[in-house]
Amino acid sequence: MKVAVYPGSFDPVTCGHLDVIKRASKVFDKLIVGVLKNSDKECFFSPGMRVDMINMLDLPNNVEVIAFDRLLVDFMKDNGAEILVKGLRAVSDYEYECQMAWINKKLMAECDTFFVPTSEEYAYLSSSIVKEIARYNGNLNGLVPEELHEIIKTKMEG
Amino acid sequence: MKVAVYPGSFDPVTCGHLDVIKRASKVFDKLIVGVLKNSDKECFFSPGMRVDMINMLDLPNNVEVIAFDRLLVDFMKDNGAEILVKGLRAVSDYEYECQMAWINKKLMAECDTFFVPTSEEYAYLSSSIVKEIARYNGNLNGLVPEELHEIIKTKMEG
Amino acid sequence: MKVAVYPGSFDPVTCGHLDVIKRASKVFDKLIVGVLKNSDKECFFSPGMRVDMINMLDLPNNVEVIAFDRLLVDFMKDNGAEILVKGLRAVSDYEYECQMAWINKKLMAECDTFFVPTSEEYAYLSSSIVKEIARYNGNLNGLVPEELHEIIKTKMEG
Amino acid sequence: MKVAVYPGSFDPVTCGHLDVIKRASKVFDKLIVGVLKNSDKECFFSPGMRVDMINMLDLPNNVEVIAFDRLLVDFMKDNGAEILVKGLRAVSDYEYECQMAWINKKLMAECDTFFVPTSEEYAYLSSSIVKEIARYNGNLNGLVPEELHEIIKTKMEG
Amino acid sequence: MKVAVYPGSFDPVTCGHLDVIKRASKVFDKLIVGVLKNSDKECFFSPGMRVDMINMLDLPNNVEVIAFDRLLVDFMKDNGAEILVKGLRAVSDYEYECQMAWINKKLMAECDTFFVPTSEEYAYLSSSIVKEIARYNGNLNGLVPEELHEIIKTKMEG
Amino acid sequence: MKVAVYPGSFDPVTCGHLDVIKRASKVFDKLIVGVLKNSDKECFFSPGMRVDMINMLDLPNNVEVIAFDRLLVDFMKDNGAEILVKGLRAVSDYEYECQMAWINKKLMAECDTFFVPTSEEYAYLSSSIVKEIARYNGNLNGLVPEELHEIIKTKMEG
Repeated sequence: MKVAVYPGSFDPVTCGHLDVIKRASKVFDKLIVGVLKNSDKECFFSPGMRVDMINMLDLPNNVEVIAFDRLLVDFMKDNGAEILVKGLRAVSDYEYECQMAWINKKLMAECDTFFVPTSEEYAYLSSSIVKEIARYNGNLNGLVPEELHEIIKTKMEG
Repeated sequence: MKVAVYPGSFDPVTCGHLDVIKRASKVFDKLIVGVLKNSDKECFFSPGMRVDMINMLDLPNNVEVIAFDRLLVDFMKDNGAEILVKGLRAVSDYEYECQMAWINKKLMAECDTFFVPTSEEYAYLSSSIVKEIARYNGNLNGLVPEELHEIIKTKMEG
Repeated sequence: MKVAVYPGSFDPVTCGHLDVIKRASKVFDKLIVGVLKNSDKECFFSPGMRVDMINMLDLPNNVEVIAFDRLLVDFMKDNGAEILVKGLRAVSDYEYECQMAWINKKLMAECDTFFVPTSEEYAYLSSSIVKEIARYNGNLNGLVPEELHEIIKTKMEG
Repeated sequence: MKVAVYPGSFDPVTCGHLDVIKRASKVFDKLIVGVLKNSDKECFFSPGMRVDMINMLDLPNNVEVIAFDRLLVDFMKDNGAEILVKGLRAVSDYEYECQMAWINKKLMAECDTFFVPTSEEYAYLSSSIVKEIARYNGNLNGLVPEELHEIIKTKMEG
Repeated sequence: MKVAVYPGSFDPVTCGHLDVIKRASKVFDKLIVGVLKNSDKECFFSPGMRVDMINMLDLPNNVEVIAFDRLLVDFMKDNGAEILVKGLRAVSDYEYECQMAWINKKLMAECDTFFVPTSEEYAYLSSSIVKEIARYNGNLNGLVPEELHEIIKTKMEG
Repeated sequence: MKVAVYPGSFDPVTCGHLDVIKRASKVFDKLIVGVLKNSDKECFFSPGMRVDMINMLDLPNNVEVIAFDRLLVDFMKDNGAEILVKGLRAVSDYEYECQMAWINKKLMAECDTFFVPTSEEYAYLSSSIVKEIARYNGNLNGLVPEELHEIIKTKMEG
């Protein structure tokens, strides 16, 4: 069974993330969405909330969402995964992700990274832009799945 | 069954290409190495020779090598493939490949592209550099699989 | 009166080019689409045909199409233009275009370049990709304005 | 009337910013320099001071300086502007700005972004570099307009 | 005598840094490793510790390690150096370093910057990645010189 | 004695090249400008003429100009050089040059590459741009050393 991990902060999950989840889940037998806990301080939403928001979406059956607070390769080993999936937007993403792919391979020889290029309609999209827009009460259509608009706005006002 | 196509000119196949073939063949049920015929004029080796050289290598069982002279998406459809695999070295590669991923998705909605970052030991490697070095009778160790050194040198001298 | 020049090969004009023409023509009093003659050898369509194809489109009133075979800054001076408009897709475009903006400023001190980022729906689009697809009889919808589909296919088959 | 907005932190305004202001003000009927208030915490100079410093410069007549604390597109609508002007230095600037141009177009369909490439003599210049140099009492000639040298040094020592 | 300065935070020094030190020290008569003091707040190790860690390594004879808290060009002048050496990994490094090279040349006309491309085996390596791995008790072999493993782990646990 | 090689096509030599020659010759004991012969077909000026044009310039005493038609590392060995100097303009330059630095290191372990960032005043300058401008009889001041203006124009008209 081919198990892949798709790691990130998902603070919050966007339409771009969901697009990657859908595409990767078609290709691998199981896809684990790994929510990074440890960068908590800089995150706006708590790890629990970030996991919950992803679970509120209409996910394919072979997708599981798990929060983790370890080296990524250790998280992969614990879940029997040897494949890493990363979504890529910009060129600078790519450079950084290449470096991470190399370091992860060094730390775990069986680990192979696959990059999924973001659909061009989401090429401009990031969690920070979503928060920036939400903060000023801007329109989140097409940026964040509709199920989450309410929860994001509530938290922003809170 | 997940069938993936790994297209290219392979003029000639390098250790970097072989690295991508090995990594992708572990993940997909079948991997078709698609050798582009139509850029013949600019290629040093004939399409037949480029196919033969790949077949001379010690390939995993689920790998097949086929030459093609069609739109890539049509080649994929004819072979029941919905996954495209591309190896990536540099940032400029990435940009171009992103554009190709988008255009291929536009031409064939089910087509998903996955990028495999080249191992850092092959990050400098390209078919052109191999030909440049071979032309001056330089050392091909670690650049091209050993099985091919003789055939490349012979053709170069010819 | 603010006259701007939008130069290029337009071999052939694409939906991305048309998008830039429409956006720039809203901002400047007059927009001259300058069709480069001198790269003829490498162009598939003749300069006359490239001009004709642009003129077949539904252009705003303040747009004029002119072929030229001179230094760009000399063409600008002859047409009373001090503004250069360039459409940008990828990062590598940007670098090259920055260099050209600097050199043009050096050759003509009043010359100011403005870059228009291509709509994300056209970010993958180039004249070469259009020709590649047309050559294999692929679908040109959304890539090239419909008025031109017939003329491009006829020329390709010819 | 073509109204353009040139937004930024201007913490402090540099010779590079002034170069963009001068070039853009020649092309558009009115240019509003929009000083972002909300990133206050990270700014060294207060919003009021940042506005004042720009107003101390010898600006063209059709330039107005306004601080704002809203979504950029809302600020534009309030000022009847449909054109966004951004100065660009490096490639990484360009990528980010492209994403912002796309998102702003999504939030306000009439919004068109125009990029002005920084003169090569200012390609190395940023507000952070200016502050770094000022902090160590370095020479600000050619980096920041002379009118501001005193005020910057005084604030730095304060 | 050709004196060169190799500045940085070295928080902590990595195998990649050591590679640059070795290569640069072969070419210049004297190489001063300049440890930046002033970014202390963001550094994990104190300036003294960062200097000590470099001095614990097996350095060539013509290498000296000095902490500094001044403009880089002033530090160079005080040490009779007119050459700046920077190691480069990624493209984004390059852009930023180019800007710094230009600004340093502006502040000190005799200052010439030379870039050393990192060996491909260290292309993925940075001080932040080292700290990330050390924090989760990961394997530091090949990332940081062995002499420093103990001291880094102790400090991390502290 | 530190011998460095600065290789290139120099078709023709520009003010940017001369800037690199001057800066590198200050740092190394001997600088050999290596003029690549083998790309003749694509070069406008003959190898002899390209060497002659560089020799017409006011070069520092420790600079020698030699044409070569071999692998670069073999040329270096024949001349007792272990240092490679490359001038860098744009980011895409950098990527390619990094790959070449790695491959050259692989072919010759003692070979170390040093990059010199082009002065910002020459950042837009390339031999192709010079030829483009000369072809249309444009102004070469500040692009090519004055000694060469006549010879370039004569050849262009020929």
